[in-house]
Amino acid sequence: MNTTPKKLQALRTLMRQHELDAYVIPSSDAHQSEYVASHWKAREWISGFSGSSGTVVVTASHAGLWTDSRYFLQAAEELKGSGIALHKLGIPHTAEHLDWMLEQLPHGSRIGFDGRQFSAGQVRQMARQLAAKEVVLETSLDLVGEIWHDRPPLPAQPVFDHDIRYAGESREHKLQRVRKKIGEADACLITTLDDIAWLFNLRGSDVECNPVFYAFAVVGKELAWLFIEPQKIPENVRLQLKKAGVLIKSYEEMQGFLAGTTAGMYISADRHSINQQLFSILTEERIVEGSNITAALKGVKNKTEIGHLKNAMVKDGVAMVRLFRWLEEQLHQGSTVTEASLADQLTLFRKEQELAMGDSFFAIVSYGANGAIIHYKPEHGTCAQLAPSGILLLDSGGQYLDGTTDITRTVALGKPTSQQKSDFTLVLKGHIALADAVFPEGTTGIQLDILARMPLWQQQMNYGHGTGHGVGFFLNVHEGPHGIGPASSARSNTPLALGMVTSNEPGIYREGSHGMRTENLILCVERGESEFGSFYAFETISLFPIDLKLLDRALLSPREIEWLNDYHATVYARLSPFLTKEEAAWLAGQCRPV
Amino acid sequence: MNTTPKKLQALRTLMRQHELDAYVIPSSDAHQSEYVASHWKAREWISGFSGSSGTVVVTASHAGLWTDSRYFLQAAEELKGSGIALHKLGIPHTAEHLDWMLEQLPHGSRIGFDGRQFSAGQVRQMARQLAAKEVVLETSLDLVGEIWHDRPPLPAQPVFDHDIRYAGESREHKLQRVRKKIGEADACLITTLDDIAWLFNLRGSDVECNPVFYAFAVVGKELAWLFIEPQKIPENVRLQLKKAGVLIKSYEEMQGFLAGTTAGMYISADRHSINQQLFSILTEERIVEGSNITAALKGVKNKTEIGHLKNAMVKDGVAMVRLFRWLEEQLHQGSTVTEASLADQLTLFRKEQELAMGDSFFAIVSYGANGAIIHYKPEHGTCAQLAPSGILLLDSGGQYLDGTTDITRTVALGKPTSQQKSDFTLVLKGHIALADAVFPEGTTGIQLDILARMPLWQQQMNYGHGTGHGVGFFLNVHEGPHGIGPASSARSNTPLALGMVTSNEPGIYREGSHGMRTENLILCVERGESEFGSFYAFETISLFPIDLKLLDRALLSPREIEWLNDYHATVYARLSPFLTKEEAAWLAGQCRPV
Repeated sequence: MNTTPKKLQALRTLMRQHELDAYVIPSSDAHQSEYVASHWKAREWISGFSGSSGTVVVTASHAGLWTDSRYFLQAAEELKGSGIALHKLGIPHTAEHLDWMLEQLPHGSRIGFDGRQFSAGQVRQMARQLAAKEVVLETSLDLVGEIWHDRPPLPAQPVFDHDIRYAGESREHKLQRVRKKIGEADACLITTLDDIAWLFNLRGSDVECNPVFYAFAVVGKELAWLFIEPQKIPENVRLQLKKAGVLIKSYEEMQGFLAGTTAGMYISADRHSINQQLFSILTEERIVEGSNITAALKGVKNKTEIGHLKNAMVKDGVAMVRLFRWLEEQLHQGSTVTEASLADQLTLFRKEQELAMGDSFFAIVSYGANGAIIHYKPEHGTCAQLAPSGILLLDSGGQYLDGTTDITRTVALGKPTSQQKSDFTLVLKGHIALADAVFPEGTTGIQLDILARMPLWQQQMNYGHGTGHGVGFFLNVHEGPHGIGPASSARSNTPLALGMVTSNEPGIYREGSHGMRTENLILCVERGESEFGSFYAFETISLFPIDLKLLDRALLSPREIEWLNDYHATVYARLSPFLTKEEAAWLAGQCRPV
Repeated sequence: MNTTPKKLQALRTLMRQHELDAYVIPSSDAHQSEYVASHWKAREWISGFSGSSGTVVVTASHAGLWTDSRYFLQAAEELKGSGIALHKLGIPHTAEHLDWMLEQLPHGSRIGFDGRQFSAGQVRQMARQLAAKEVVLETSLDLVGEIWHDRPPLPAQPVFDHDIRYAGESREHKLQRVRKKIGEADACLITTLDDIAWLFNLRGSDVECNPVFYAFAVVGKELAWLFIEPQKIPENVRLQLKKAGVLIKSYEEMQGFLAGTTAGMYISADRHSINQQLFSILTEERIVEGSNITAALKGVKNKTEIGHLKNAMVKDGVAMVRLFRWLEEQLHQGSTVTEASLADQLTLFRKEQELAMGDSFFAIVSYGANGAIIHYKPEHGTCAQLAPSGILLLDSGGQYLDGTTDITRTVALGKPTSQQKSDFTLVLKGHIALADAVFPEGTTGIQLDILARMPLWQQQMNYGHGTGHGVGFFLNVHEGPHGIGPASSARSNTPLALGMVTSNEPGIYREGSHGMRTENLILCVERGESEFGSFYAFETISLFPIDLKLLDRALLSPREIEWLNDYHATVYARLSPFLTKEEAAWLAGQCRPV
């Protein structure tokens, strides 16, 4: 039985007590994380919708969930019987629920939410967008927390040192680089979990697939403070941090520290990173507004990280070879393989690799029509069983001490149709156009995005997601500051810098039929200098063959054929030394020149 | 003898009287026009620099001109002996003089300028950028006006009705469409000259090459007011305007009208269009801020305009055929042809065409190394003489009652080098990629720009200007609201709409050697609907052959060759009916399939 109606009833009782006309429940935590610990899954708890992105708005007469096209089918399924209506976002990651509230709510309405779950920038945007209705925002109400009696506590996993042999730069040096960027402020407040993990060369396991830990940080001119449950810090780490001038305070002390200890200080902070609760403690006057300093530094991988990452790509490719050989064998033998069991098997093959630390996200294994559900997550018991026919899409990644991977391959398990071959090859043409781009210093992702789309657009086809996201180094599989996409955003307007890693993942999705995506990670490298300036290019660093069975060679230009053959030669050369003779022979076949 | 030092001396005397630390003199008029009447050429009068874009800043100890790379050579020449230093803009159209002032001026400085020559948006930007120095802005000082004793008066040319048979929409209907967009305001203030000309279906000749007239306009819910010197309005026009509910007031009454008549009214205005003087009369409280309503409406050409424009393209192509035939003959006979005399000849050939109204801008005729000076303007007496060798670049356009044209061709007068052929063909590949694009509704110019650049970028080449600008209909050759360029701006972030006309003009410039550009106008048209949405494409509407002598066919893809042959077939089919037998034979040769 769906428990949401009861929860909504309890929430509405509280809303009446607080005289609220609406209550908003987003997907985030106090650190603006994309993926959060169970403690923070208030939106999932109340609605039953388990997708990573979505916002619930509850009023006296209506409850709605706003989510994007990736989740339309899943949300419709999970919301059944909840009493919550699905509102489909026209444009992903936009706050269209604000438009709805602007239209529906009476003048002077009171809107409540947990200010920790919104960035100060989001609250400002909300206030601006609803200004015409002169609404009042109550930003310090955790009403779901009051009715969520079995709410999981915050995770208490220990953190560990991410060895400098992988990180390539000491925490002392990173702190110095941050200090140089603080400018006129006295200190810098960092609240985003991956930035904190990067800055202190620490990792944790508080969030599934993301090796981060719940903490806040303040970097002063000479000292730095890490706000974290002290029992999470092992003794050796405590000593290392002390040596680097890092003082430990408990996670709960963050607010008091901002209100008390640093009361007279000017703090550099990014309004789009820090949450409304901390922002309101600091007050506008004390904030020296800047962009997220650590995100910009972290996005540029150093030479040591790049060297390791390329090695991690080899290990990841070997695991993928083993998986696809295993799959072929299972199908050949007539054994049962489901989407979920294939994902489990890939997790096992990755775990066999050196320095493996688990998956970097829940694999999307989607077979046949499921492929059209962009962020499909297979579940044991309900997911599809694979057969030697149809199209399989596999988007997965691994965490290694020496890097994070993210790769998507689409393969034909049987004989593909000509439409399937054409779809696949058009996506590949876009993928190659981006991989093969040369561009001057200063070029941004919104400029590059069209390269991956034009072959599809020419056929009046398109895909409803971005083309590329930044990827962490043994960190979150999605990170900024950059990104490649068609809409103007802070990420798509950030110039690509040497050393940045981005995904390259155009796709095509035909509802009820199939989904296709080809994703490699690409590294921004120097191409050369000319009288016209400095030029950059991409180096594709993911290593696994692209399914030639799905290729319509006639659609490729000579240069595209050359790129594909070059790529396959590289894949074979890099992976084969780590394969058995049989595996290498299989790979040679997959990498044959066309 | 350079008169600038004396003028600067007089200006500095006035600056001392007003206790100013700096005085700023831009290129604009009270309407934020790109091209202005002589009355408004204060910057040119004081500095001697005649380029269309540049800003002079005068302090007690320094006088500087900021202009962009198009004008570096010209400005260096014209500023000789002026005592004004040339500051080269790194990025065109940016306010880098503000950075300089921020650095150079003491805390609390007083900066003066004529507030009519700056938009309210520019003044806000200036205040923000100089906030750290707590400067005071004196926005109502026309100091140059006080010392410019022979300042030309504002032009007094009569306006005329732009017949609805060309405009395709009555002024009544246009006024109704504007009224629908005013929203909660009581009236809308329009100050941009081309918007006023478009809205009232009137044209004038106050500014060379731009068929506009000096006026302001206010559109109320029922009436509209046109502020213009009454003697500029012929009786027939006055009656037509009266019929449309348009009241005439004198140009000088604008300020009083805003301060008095409409005192209690809320006014919709675009901060980036209206000048600071009017803005300060209105005050922030009375302004309902919006984008420029008329610019958005005017940018979308109606079916009648499009039909006429295509006809104007035929006439323009015929004039171009006659010019190039004439040039070949002159060179063959050994007659003297200079850059300037070629421009004059083209003006004559255009004038022979029906409904011709002169040039749409001063033609850029640049031969050999002059081609690398992007906005080169040939002058009789000093300009280059053409010979049957080298590269000629010709960028020109005509005004016709039935449309405005803008076309650039680069031709080899002798045998081109292989670098020249390669440069030309790479530019052409970019031109074709943009012309051939298909894109979903909502796509913006910043997304499309890369298509025109990638073939150059692949060879580490680039050009330092935008790829496309909007073009008026018997109006300004440069107009918004859209544009195609690599930098994020209001124009490049405006979605392309059906009926918008844009230039497509990639180029390449090698200092001391040659410049090349291929420009056609492209019309945004519907391509079709699919399950993935609505798709648009471009139709190339300019009609003149692309020089095959400069083509390196081996660099073109099969699709590019097909595009070129199709284009040339269209050019021949559209132009030949209007040519003599000899001209048609010549054109057939130019349009031969490759």
